[in-house]
Amino acid sequence: MDMVELTKKVMEGDVRSASRLIRNLEDGSADAKQVIKRIFPYTGKAHIVGLTGSPGAGKSTLTDELIACYRKTEKSIGVLAIDPTSPFTGGAILGDRIRMQRHAEDPNVFVRSLATRGAMGGLSKAVGDAVHVMDVMGKDMIIIETVGTGQQEVEIINHAHTVIVVLVPGMGDEIQAIKAGIMEIGDIFVINKADRDGAGKLYKEVMSMLDMAPSFPGGWRPPILLAETVFEPPKFSKEVEKIAEAIDAHYKHLIENNILGDRVRRKALHEMNEALKQAILEPVLNKLIADGDFDRMVEQLMTKESDPYTLADQVGNKYLDKCIRE
Amino acid sequence: MDMVELTKKVMEGDVRSASRLIRNLEDGSADAKQVIKRIFPYTGKAHIVGLTGSPGAGKSTLTDELIACYRKTEKSIGVLAIDPTSPFTGGAILGDRIRMQRHAEDPNVFVRSLATRGAMGGLSKAVGDAVHVMDVMGKDMIIIETVGTGQQEVEIINHAHTVIVVLVPGMGDEIQAIKAGIMEIGDIFVINKADRDGAGKLYKEVMSMLDMAPSFPGGWRPPILLAETVFEPPKFSKEVEKIAEAIDAHYKHLIENNILGDRVRRKALHEMNEALKQAILEPVLNKLIADGDFDRMVEQLMTKESDPYTLADQVGNKYLDKCIRE
Repeated sequence: MDMVELTKKVMEGDVRSASRLIRNLEDGSADAKQVIKRIFPYTGKAHIVGLTGSPGAGKSTLTDELIACYRKTEKSIGVLAIDPTSPFTGGAILGDRIRMQRHAEDPNVFVRSLATRGAMGGLSKAVGDAVHVMDVMGKDMIIIETVGTGQQEVEIINHAHTVIVVLVPGMGDEIQAIKAGIMEIGDIFVINKADRDGAGKLYKEVMSMLDMAPSFPGGWRPPILLAETVFEPPKFSKEVEKIAEAIDAHYKHLIENNILGDRVRRKALHEMNEALKQAILEPVLNKLIADGDFDRMVEQLMTKESDPYTLADQVGNKYLDKCIRE
Repeated sequence: MDMVELTKKVMEGDVRSASRLIRNLEDGSADAKQVIKRIFPYTGKAHIVGLTGSPGAGKSTLTDELIACYRKTEKSIGVLAIDPTSPFTGGAILGDRIRMQRHAEDPNVFVRSLATRGAMGGLSKAVGDAVHVMDVMGKDMIIIETVGTGQQEVEIINHAHTVIVVLVPGMGDEIQAIKAGIMEIGDIFVINKADRDGAGKLYKEVMSMLDMAPSFPGGWRPPILLAETVFEPPKFSKEVEKIAEAIDAHYKHLIENNILGDRVRRKALHEMNEALKQAILEPVLNKLIADGDFDRMVEQLMTKESDPYTLADQVGNKYLDKCIRE
């Protein structure tokens, strides 16, 4: 299939074409990039929701139940699950995401996993492009589910309009510290497994953290919702319905208060940055590697003949346009 | 103090000068970079040990006990603790690292925290340079302690000769998945809080993961050690002594089998990459921002007038030397 045909198929919502395109984006294919150029003008219609939180917090179960809840309203849903890739285990670990398979037969639910390859990727470069694909497929809502907690997961703010932070009682103090990294990005907090000991304490902690915040952008104070996602499919609880309501309320708030634009700008800014990284840095690195210069420089570091800053400045002087260097 | 004087002081092991230099490196000072250029030829003497693992696994306590253990052998130790920074809480969260204060009076122990600023930093750029500082101060061993688990923490392999992965029983399945991301980087596995339920199960899991590995680089099969770091300072256990022995054995293995060079090369490669990122990408971004081009491009993305890849290619064509573009 050529790129024009593939673009057309994806925009018609064809699942197989979209899956193929996302796989090619993961592989860094240049053709896939051409398709993104074509579909880009048609993006920007979906509500993008990010789900992040401690490992084992039940994010996948929550996503699964949110899908079921939203499907009652006839909304079409895309889910992008970020999976760690391990050479040790030989592939993406899907864990209980397999549960979401119950929606596999539903043509209005499109679930895809993206592997974060290697250590450097952070939230895989392909995330933004995969979201674009689901967007032009006509999904009303796209849920991005991250793996675990960490500095890396904070990047979800660069992709989502609404960020849900899922917490769970009974984790250690150090977890609390790490949470601090994601506390300021939450638009909605969910305390999952709220039947467990310590749920009340956690609720109070989050509440007092919010009380400490100097202000809330756009005047949205993040609600704290409780959930117990322990039921078997295809049931879902009143609590999940409340979370879905909060998600919708936040989107409405963004639009009505004219602050959706800020989120869209943040996404655009991030996307531009990533694209520049690729367009500026990669050709220089490729040239250095092709010419054997990179190896020579590494050798010079190992023999202490030079230092990284001096060598990098030399590369800059050689390959950057004069107007940049001056 | 001028840079020549500061360089001299740091190389004499002066704690106040070294602390100031590390603080300046964190702030991205150009002067501090000049000092790194000067000290770089004298680096490469210390054994660099990375400590990573699940949040709440007791990494700080273990570090603390390793220090006490090593101080019996008259080795001088540097510790670099990576802390998350949260605008919400207004600073780095040191948690129980404060415990390490018991070594504060010991002139041969130098503990410093580095804040990972914002979402993009990953293992803070300053880590490599701070290690260089401790190295030329004459530290025999430098322990880098990361925060939490995640793709980001895998980057520790780019800094350390020996990587210790600290695990703890009783975490959820998703944690297991995340661990998979760090399983392949461990030279030594420590199962901490081994008195807890599930320690035996975790031991077996790690063992069978190692059994599944096709081969071990250099023939080093990572040992799995048990620990119960629950004692009060200044005691430390036989178990910690065994961990220290394993660390030394791994370093000896690297040297005797002529594979330390591979680790040093990996470090150099990473360092060269980071320096190039700074020297190539930053000037272009600064130019785009100064000229207002960056804002204009973000605007074009928001209005869908263009797409990120097309715009980034235009920047490359404008600012990269012709020989790169061809």
